[in-house]
Amino acid sequence: MRYPLLLAALLPASLAAQTPAPIDAVDPMIGTGGEGHTFPGATAPFGMVQLSPDTDTRCEIRACYSHAAGYRYEDPTIQGFSHTHFSGAGHSDLGDVLVMPAVGTDVALDPGDPKQPGTGYRSRFDHKTETAHPGYYAVTLADSKVRAELTAGTRIGVHRYTFPAGQVAHLLIDLRSSLYNYPGKVLWSGLHLRPDGVLTGFRETRGWAPGRKLYFAMRFSAPLADHAFLDREEKVLYKGFQGPGRGSDALAEKLGRALEARLDFGVLSAPLEVKVALSGVDENAAVANLASEAGGFDAVRARTTAAWETALGAVAIDAPAPIRTSVYTALYHALLAPSVWSDADGRYRGPDDQVHQAKGFTFRSTFSLWDTFRAEHPLLTLVQPEQTNADVVQSLVASQQASPDGILPVWQFAGRETWCMIGYHAVPVIADAYLKGLRGFDADAALAAMVASADHRSYGGLGDYIDHGYVPIDKEPEAASKTVEYAFDDWTIARMARAMGKTAIADRFEKRASNWRNSFDAKTGWLRARLSTGAFRTPFDPTAINYGSDYTEGNAWQYSWFVPQDEAGLIALLGGDAKTVAKLDAMFDFDMSKVDYSHAEDIAGLIGQYIHGNEPSHHVAYLYAYAGAPWRTQARLKQIVDSQYKPTPDGLAGNDDLGQMSAWLVFTALGFYPVAPGSNQYVIGRPFVSRAVMNLPNGKRFTVVAEGLSDAKPYVGAVTLNGVPLTRSFVTDAEVRGGGELRFTMTAAPNRAWGSGTAARPYSMSMR
Amino acid sequence: MRYPLLLAALLPASLAAQTPAPIDAVDPMIGTGGEGHTFPGATAPFGMVQLSPDTDTRCEIRACYSHAAGYRYEDPTIQGFSHTHFSGAGHSDLGDVLVMPAVGTDVALDPGDPKQPGTGYRSRFDHKTETAHPGYYAVTLADSKVRAELTAGTRIGVHRYTFPAGQVAHLLIDLRSSLYNYPGKVLWSGLHLRPDGVLTGFRETRGWAPGRKLYFAMRFSAPLADHAFLDREEKVLYKGFQGPGRGSDALAEKLGRALEARLDFGVLSAPLEVKVALSGVDENAAVANLASEAGGFDAVRARTTAAWETALGAVAIDAPAPIRTSVYTALYHALLAPSVWSDADGRYRGPDDQVHQAKGFTFRSTFSLWDTFRAEHPLLTLVQPEQTNADVVQSLVASQQASPDGILPVWQFAGRETWCMIGYHAVPVIADAYLKGLRGFDADAALAAMVASADHRSYGGLGDYIDHGYVPIDKEPEAASKTVEYAFDDWTIARMARAMGKTAIADRFEKRASNWRNSFDAKTGWLRARLSTGAFRTPFDPTAINYGSDYTEGNAWQYSWFVPQDEAGLIALLGGDAKTVAKLDAMFDFDMSKVDYSHAEDIAGLIGQYIHGNEPSHHVAYLYAYAGAPWRTQARLKQIVDSQYKPTPDGLAGNDDLGQMSAWLVFTALGFYPVAPGSNQYVIGRPFVSRAVMNLPNGKRFTVVAEGLSDAKPYVGAVTLNGVPLTRSFVTDAEVRGGGELRFTMTAAPNRAWGSGTAARPYSMSMR
Repeated sequence: MRYPLLLAALLPASLAAQTPAPIDAVDPMIGTGGEGHTFPGATAPFGMVQLSPDTDTRCEIRACYSHAAGYRYEDPTIQGFSHTHFSGAGHSDLGDVLVMPAVGTDVALDPGDPKQPGTGYRSRFDHKTETAHPGYYAVTLADSKVRAELTAGTRIGVHRYTFPAGQVAHLLIDLRSSLYNYPGKVLWSGLHLRPDGVLTGFRETRGWAPGRKLYFAMRFSAPLADHAFLDREEKVLYKGFQGPGRGSDALAEKLGRALEARLDFGVLSAPLEVKVALSGVDENAAVANLASEAGGFDAVRARTTAAWETALGAVAIDAPAPIRTSVYTALYHALLAPSVWSDADGRYRGPDDQVHQAKGFTFRSTFSLWDTFRAEHPLLTLVQPEQTNADVVQSLVASQQASPDGILPVWQFAGRETWCMIGYHAVPVIADAYLKGLRGFDADAALAAMVASADHRSYGGLGDYIDHGYVPIDKEPEAASKTVEYAFDDWTIARMARAMGKTAIADRFEKRASNWRNSFDAKTGWLRARLSTGAFRTPFDPTAINYGSDYTEGNAWQYSWFVPQDEAGLIALLGGDAKTVAKLDAMFDFDMSKVDYSHAEDIAGLIGQYIHGNEPSHHVAYLYAYAGAPWRTQARLKQIVDSQYKPTPDGLAGNDDLGQMSAWLVFTALGFYPVAPGSNQYVIGRPFVSRAVMNLPNGKRFTVVAEGLSDAKPYVGAVTLNGVPLTRSFVTDAEVRGGGELRFTMTAAPNRAWGSGTAARPYSMSMR
Repeated sequence: MRYPLLLAALLPASLAAQTPAPIDAVDPMIGTGGEGHTFPGATAPFGMVQLSPDTDTRCEIRACYSHAAGYRYEDPTIQGFSHTHFSGAGHSDLGDVLVMPAVGTDVALDPGDPKQPGTGYRSRFDHKTETAHPGYYAVTLADSKVRAELTAGTRIGVHRYTFPAGQVAHLLIDLRSSLYNYPGKVLWSGLHLRPDGVLTGFRETRGWAPGRKLYFAMRFSAPLADHAFLDREEKVLYKGFQGPGRGSDALAEKLGRALEARLDFGVLSAPLEVKVALSGVDENAAVANLASEAGGFDAVRARTTAAWETALGAVAIDAPAPIRTSVYTALYHALLAPSVWSDADGRYRGPDDQVHQAKGFTFRSTFSLWDTFRAEHPLLTLVQPEQTNADVVQSLVASQQASPDGILPVWQFAGRETWCMIGYHAVPVIADAYLKGLRGFDADAALAAMVASADHRSYGGLGDYIDHGYVPIDKEPEAASKTVEYAFDDWTIARMARAMGKTAIADRFEKRASNWRNSFDAKTGWLRARLSTGAFRTPFDPTAINYGSDYTEGNAWQYSWFVPQDEAGLIALLGGDAKTVAKLDAMFDFDMSKVDYSHAEDIAGLIGQYIHGNEPSHHVAYLYAYAGAPWRTQARLKQIVDSQYKPTPDGLAGNDDLGQMSAWLVFTALGFYPVAPGSNQYVIGRPFVSRAVMNLPNGKRFTVVAEGLSDAKPYVGAVTLNGVPLTRSFVTDAEVRGGGELRFTMTAAPNRAWGSGTAARPYSMSMR
């Protein structure tokens, strides 16, 4: 099924003819400048391989933050092409198995200085020679005149290098190169040249993921004329003995901590194709993955293009080019993670560093859960086949079962836990999927994993939280944020347990879901950190943002709103609708001239104290609806979309965070947003596209129409669902998934009455 | 079958009563001082675990040579007890998973200075409190007053610590500790506390073996009251995030490069037993190995004692205490390697770092082949069950098949190749075993592995050796030694191929077996290194010993005799018997007052230029027999045994080299020695025991009797084999293995006629 064709059938012929297909509306360059931290290279949907250029891999701690994805649009040189990248992460790692073509007799062995183009093996390049599409990237390396093209399958990447005629062709493989690199990051690595000419190898690194193992296999379209395996490490007291052979050319194996391979092909008469497979299991498994995806560059590219057309066809959008480009690129970015980690045969290396067999599912990793539980995973339930979401749930549960600590992933990649960020947000991901009807996994095991995670007393102050109802700041940093995030996660456990008929669990966690109140200072109206004594910690400054403070990457302005399960309860504590609306307005309109957050990473995209570049703010614009003022939500959304998203390299106001920043835009553009995953409700905002047809996983279609949409008509005058007026400010998942049409009538002036009544408001615990 | 009882039945009652059983005649302290490099701790025959005290693990390159086995008798303190040790190696590694008990409230976390007893967690000790028997070691730690006892099974070690009454008991596990340790040796390590209280962990190291992985599992007889996992590494730019828990006490997992575990047991009412299993596969496999050997300390000790009684019972010796102790200790040392490396379920990590399954055999590693092909492996064919020798051959062949370079082990341990020393001496080990009738392995695969190793052109100058008949010194260091050792190995391939009816292979390698002549300078009578031009390299000094010189750990004096396959050919080149005897005498009687070899490791045990402490000399005393003067061999052997072996800690004149130094003594004490493995002959020397009964693997008995043996009667007057006078100076393997009696009549004066005739001499290629 090719959705673009379906879409064309639904649109007037004239419009269809001039509207590019979704895949052509995607611009992978968006986010590669500014704060987005995305990469421009080639990848398949949820692919294990992200084959992409790196422009700078140097790293001193925190100085490398800007190059978390390896490539920055403003950089003048490319260092090489490596096979693994995060899309929009705040921390980084990866950048594995860097490949760089070279010509001539003198092959440089060091990358050179990024600040001095022309040094080392790096090459200058011109953006005019660059092409980036889903699954395809190309650039001309100005120094060597080599045309480099990249494509990728699920577990493979394919390079195609066209060398200048008559030039001697080489490839340099630099196993020292890495993102967030620093001395000592490579623990061990190896290179093996097999009798059939396949190059295999591995690397163990310590970085964001401790003790990560990655294996690769590489097949070349032309025979090796010669090769050298080099160990560039110096100053090692005792390396052991040299292997056989008096020249490195004779070696079949090289082990060390600073390895490079120089591969020599002589003068080639055709472009050189390099097909590379990855595996987390071992080198033989990488060889098997290499064989599992047939064909050369063009065949792989064609398959991946088709896969992208299918995936992006989940939503057919009619909108002007700028916003259409932004939304399709956002959808593209939302379909990169959680990425495949198990091999073609189902084996994968899990959180315990052991090899496991996935049975009946594909193991996925790269779980940025503190970010993605919010909108990324809810989006996947609407735009991806049921199997994708079942894979996610089964991977999370399998990870818990193999975790040395017996808890669900927090921030996991390559099967390894990083302990980055807070909460147990795999819990709302599983609960939301289950409550929306996802089956095909062992719900009892999933619930057990959720409860085990929520009851793990030694994790992030949970023991005190369980005993006292809040996390005390004198015992655990970021205690205020932890208390409210735990309470939300607990509520989702209660919801799922209730649906499963597990009353005792439901009752216990429903009680815990109110724990947010224990850290809320009703007198001042702020969420605040409390000491073990029960007193709120002083001094208190709601604008302070510091690492290890009372909050996580934020302050009281953002975190005081984190009660997705009970915004009505919060509104009551704040003194009612009017005071809540005023406080929300005060947040957006805060005078920032005297505040400096330049010391903090991940604080970007500021509209007053609303920080769109980071996740704690993401639901806040929708909270006006809970206070009976959805027209204010509509206004704020326009303010955010206009200022925070652009179809340009610097078009993302903050880290894309493995799709969360993008999923926010996809939902918001469609006119609704999942403020409280687990509630089965989407809060209505306002659409940013004239028309969108969601081709749902169940085969039904849900259409959004925005009549009269224009900059001059930014407000929602009226809403109908399947032709019947809709007076509440939310739609349910059952309504969306049931198919039909949500029709907005856009107006120049706000309709302050619509959605203002108490009964019209989205779910809150306190309401029931 | 318990051999000691059989022996008792054969001896006069009075003698049996006063002679200690073989196991009680063993003194594991022999070799722990001086140059022996043996360890005193507990191990089972060929056990995977060598649980032994370490007195000093500091290492700067070559400064640590003296502590290759971790323990030196003269050291005043014990640092702890670690689980892996080489017996007599020249290089080192291992010393894995160091355990040290501690008492009180303040547990020291660093070992302290070996030169300053009383610092750190190390403890002073008194040899009077020490007991060392095969499979058992005990000592009282003077500082903590803890009584420490050690025993070991095949894949387990068991500690028993008796803490002073009323003292709080701790164990410290220091994963930083290692032999031949240096900064950066530990690549990565991990600790996991399992819900059932079992502590598991792993360590990856770079050292003598590159990228070696070792896993362990540890069960305690008392529950943990508390624990801390500590990462002592400093100055790391980016370690990633801290795991859950606010104190290390809560952690179930710790990963890092400098880990320690402090385990707290409170006040114990009974001794603490710690049962530890190792594995090269993974932590789960270590847990399985732990379960595979039942029982606590006493049960394990009893089983291992019985195993030693059986193994040492292979030879029943009647001799005065000093020599009997030396010989039984030598037999004990000869039964430690090649040690078991596969798990209880047959899995093992092989040369390719992959996990393999041993089918029908136990995979063994710790192959010090340059040493052990000489006498250690020939001894094992006589004193060990056929399965042991079949294991050895199958392990070698399996290693070749999994080797990235496709060649047989050179110096392998923990399944990993170290590329230490020269030659392809797995070849004579396999050939010798096959020619002596060992079957139960795939002989075709074995011969293929042997040929592949001998034909690997990029290994150690083999390409030039194949093309030109010698290794040129301008292209490859130690070329003279390599040429002659390759030629010998080639001869054993020819012998085995001939026996298998593979004529083409036999012919080709028989030709190569004469290549020693190509590096022999007949004019000067020395083996010398040649240049590619064909000229001998100058300047030439037959006494020079240097690393990377013309020879391997030796000079022309020792290496000119290395033609085990054709000593008759060598004698002819030297100008006949008389000149040969004179040259041998010149070697033993060389005036060493002007020679200084203190710069060279492994050069010890000097009698003139005869260097008994290292292997190139080991066959030389027997060469007089090839020149028709066995009485000179008899005299030299007395000179060697008297000066180079003592039943004291400093009783080994050189590194025991995984049993080779000891196997030399066992053979020599019995009166014969395998100068040319592959010839199926043993050259007769003179016995050093009054009587020895070899209980052969085939159930037969071969008895050696030395009538009238005493210091005053050091010469062989006559020899009978099964009552028939034996006039030749060798016995065949078939004669020994057929059972019977070899009776020597010892005399005060030499019998110069015996064995002097040409027909009486041992095999040489030139003779046939």
